[in-house]
Amino acid sequence: MLEEDNPTRRLAEYETLMEIGVELASTLDLQRVLDIALRKAEEVCHAETSSIWELDEERQQLFFRIVRGSAAQDIRNLRVPVGEGIVGSVVESGRAERINDVSSDDRWRGDSGPHFATRAILAVPLVARGRVIGVLQLLNPVGREGFTEGDQRRMSLFAGPLANALENARLYAAQKRQFVDVVTALAEAIEKRDPYTGGHVRRVVGYSLLLAEDMGLPPEELERIRLAATLHDVGKIAVPDLVLNKPAPLDPAEQEVMRRHTVDGAEIVASLRELRGVLPGVRSHHERLDGKGYPDGLQGSEIPAVPRIIAVADTYDAMTTSRPYRRALPAEVAAGEITRGMGTQFCPHVVAAFERLFARGSFTVEAGAALLRSLSQGDGKG
Amino acid sequence: MLEEDNPTRRLAEYETLMEIGVELASTLDLQRVLDIALRKAEEVCHAETSSIWELDEERQQLFFRIVRGSAAQDIRNLRVPVGEGIVGSVVESGRAERINDVSSDDRWRGDSGPHFATRAILAVPLVARGRVIGVLQLLNPVGREGFTEGDQRRMSLFAGPLANALENARLYAAQKRQFVDVVTALAEAIEKRDPYTGGHVRRVVGYSLLLAEDMGLPPEELERIRLAATLHDVGKIAVPDLVLNKPAPLDPAEQEVMRRHTVDGAEIVASLRELRGVLPGVRSHHERLDGKGYPDGLQGSEIPAVPRIIAVADTYDAMTTSRPYRRALPAEVAAGEITRGMGTQFCPHVVAAFERLFARGSFTVEAGAALLRSLSQGDGKG
Repeated sequence: MLEEDNPTRRLAEYETLMEIGVELASTLDLQRVLDIALRKAEEVCHAETSSIWELDEERQQLFFRIVRGSAAQDIRNLRVPVGEGIVGSVVESGRAERINDVSSDDRWRGDSGPHFATRAILAVPLVARGRVIGVLQLLNPVGREGFTEGDQRRMSLFAGPLANALENARLYAAQKRQFVDVVTALAEAIEKRDPYTGGHVRRVVGYSLLLAEDMGLPPEELERIRLAATLHDVGKIAVPDLVLNKPAPLDPAEQEVMRRHTVDGAEIVASLRELRGVLPGVRSHHERLDGKGYPDGLQGSEIPAVPRIIAVADTYDAMTTSRPYRRALPAEVAAGEITRGMGTQFCPHVVAAFERLFARGSFTVEAGAALLRSLSQGDGKG
Repeated sequence: MLEEDNPTRRLAEYETLMEIGVELASTLDLQRVLDIALRKAEEVCHAETSSIWELDEERQQLFFRIVRGSAAQDIRNLRVPVGEGIVGSVVESGRAERINDVSSDDRWRGDSGPHFATRAILAVPLVARGRVIGVLQLLNPVGREGFTEGDQRRMSLFAGPLANALENARLYAAQKRQFVDVVTALAEAIEKRDPYTGGHVRRVVGYSLLLAEDMGLPPEELERIRLAATLHDVGKIAVPDLVLNKPAPLDPAEQEVMRRHTVDGAEIVASLRELRGVLPGVRSHHERLDGKGYPDGLQGSEIPAVPRIIAVADTYDAMTTSRPYRRALPAEVAAGEITRGMGTQFCPHVVAAFERLFARGSFTVEAGAALLRSLSQGDGKG
């Protein structure tokens, strides 16, 4: 009897695989699923490098989701058409491949860089909801001649929970993206009523994210700031056209009406249990540390972090874009105003972040847009 | 050696449990997870009845997610505080309980109805992300004296993937609910600019769902109609106050501006890849079968199902609510107008559904609101 057929050993193996399955299913975060997957795959079948390829169904190409080990730098940006090479043929056939001498395989097209020499490949299809969604690949077993039948069996058992965990994380990320997209589209539609602020919302989102990232806030917090900044002016929906579109400074009564957008916005957002975290950003982005802001005249520590960040982003954008009754200020002048407001109008930590970013030329519309794009991609679409 | 310790038998058992784990992870639909769970739990440990309890963390109570077998009718609405009874103590301790003679257990509080006599209980905690989220319970083993240690071990192994699948489905449903809530809140905020149509969006959503359900459309389609109806007037964001709020019939130029809300709404929605399915409902809900509608003058089969449904719901609501320049029509008169428009303005299938509902008194604001509520609950929150 081969050692691999020993039932006691097999039992231990199954127990490990069941634990891994539970661990993979315990998150809907794509990056975490991928990290767990490669760590565990290498634990179960020791290999020099491992990778997960995902199928881009539209283009019928495989791309890398994640790769570990020394081959990483050679192949990170590789794209492989379905049906080509070894991973491409695994996707097409839906069957695992175990090739212990790649040089003798017709489909092998050589290593893609000088940093790694492939000897052996074990590639198993990832099948979720009955469809092949990618490939799990191990290269070069460590301490053995080649991959064994046991390796292949283990990886095939591992592929089931992995494929489902990947698919669930993808679906969750897609739903989340949809949510953010819809909120953004509606917020921008609302913004369009005001012909003088085109793109304001998007710029404030970008600036706020730059500040929050520089301040070292964690990813969940960035996500919250993104939504809060997107919705910060949503209450302007209730401001009449005559006030919103007035091509001149507002008189005190009109100012009063305009200022109500903070309260109206908060009311819209408050109806959403799930958006509690966004509420302070919407209601309090016109508060000032010295208590002279609106709508509540909050002071100092009464003002939460998110509205403090949005306040700087919002004010900077207002100063650096033109209105019919006043020209945009040059960036340096606006930056000086932000610095001048430190401690009275603005939070010193936020202003410090602003100054760091501004000094190195990173507080720009483009940098904000790029950060926003990278966050959206992090949601899970390659 | 006990038969249960036989490694070969254990291997077969693990294989089954691994397959079940993969099946549980292959969906994010809560109802499907629950159905698979009880079917498989009964397959693995044959029992007279089985149930899944979920922890309501806020109230520190357990409620039924699903129950199968003859005890169902007695316990469906039961709520059990944490710490009380046997399931309550499993949640508190986080440990499984196997009780083969419940009458001798102090915590047992008797059967809650006359349809079922409990002899034995096997209850295992459902732990996801390190937190107890509920309990899986089996009652009365079939063909055996009591539940065995093997039963308990199998159910404990089964509980891991089940707990994760439940938690993932809950999170997915919560995210979806958040999406629908936000779209609804923003659509209603936009609607509030028009002081004469308070509640119009919500009523049109309810009426549209009543029609769609009566027409036998599947659940995914109801979901699509719900979103499309919610957003059908989103383009009114771009209609100036002077036109939107005019307390009199619109002149031709103003009508032209007002009619543009279909195109503007479609443009807002079109920017959202994920909302493709909603687009026709937003753009084409003022089209008519005879080609005399707007904005595109589509005819007959050119008009998709969703806008045909919204058209009837929208028109009926407009007729049965007051405007400053005209009074609401009585329901019967409005219904007669819908019937009169059959085949020229409206789709005959939709009108047929309307007539069926109206005839039995089910085409009401309340019925629509109730259907909407039941759909929201189906999203996964008990």
